[in-house]
Amino acid sequence: MPAVTTHEFASVDDLPPQMLRDGICVRPVHGRHITLAVVELDPGVRMPEHRHPNEQVGVVIRGAFTFTVGGETRTRQPGDMWVIPPEVAHAVESTGDDGCTIVETFSPPRGDWVDIPRRQPAPGRWPAR
Amino acid sequence: MPAVTTHEFASVDDLPPQMLRDGICVRPVHGRHITLAVVELDPGVRMPEHRHPNEQVGVVIRGAFTFTVGGETRTRQPGDMWVIPPEVAHAVESTGDDGCTIVETFSPPRGDWVDIPRRQPAPGRWPAR
Repeated sequence: MPAVTTHEFASVDDLPPQMLRDGICVRPVHGRHITLAVVELDPGVRMPEHRHPNEQVGVVIRGAFTFTVGGETRTRQPGDMWVIPPEVAHAVESTGDDGCTIVETFSPPRGDWVDIPRRQPAPGRWPAR
Repeated sequence: MPAVTTHEFASVDDLPPQMLRDGICVRPVHGRHITLAVVELDPGVRMPEHRHPNEQVGVVIRGAFTFTVGGETRTRQPGDMWVIPPEVAHAVESTGDDGCTIVETFSPPRGDWVDIPRRQPAPGRWPAR
């Protein structure tokens, strides 16, 4: 990814959604050290166990899901957070009728996301909107 | 700060608030590479121009504020984001009648926050609560 040398302003509604897989939409901004993404999960979506070299730290904004991290399973609701060190396995299952919106951050940045196709910008599912 | 070797779950309501200054409350979790903090600004609070070696990337959850970054001033509302490279000057002024809640992330982590006194946990101002 190109080096980030200047500041950037963005808004979730103007960022092109990228589909990580069916029912999992990410809208990331990338810094030099951090990727911050608004992530939306549709109801009933599963992200099977996976791991990556990026540390992952996040918080729930809206809705609920079940997170299994390092073999420990927890329900996550608005205001709940997690810290996942690099290479620790984790899996996600979205619960509830309306999916969820979370803020996820990664370091180093998710260079592997850059080639995921970008859709037309569309409003994010945000509590205050 | 101690090295992070295992995963961690947390919740904004269980984290001890730390006052960065009068009217600016942070509830951080610290990873090896990232600090993620729920930050609450009271109405009318000003954080004067400052800079630090940590990259800073964030998003607004609730309320509004004015952000001046690298000499550019923008209103930030729910879903609005920013990427501030290391050592770029920035200043904050909270607007509106109810302050705001934002998610801020930093890399490297905010080791300089570790010695800020911790208050008793108290519920965060969160849209869904």
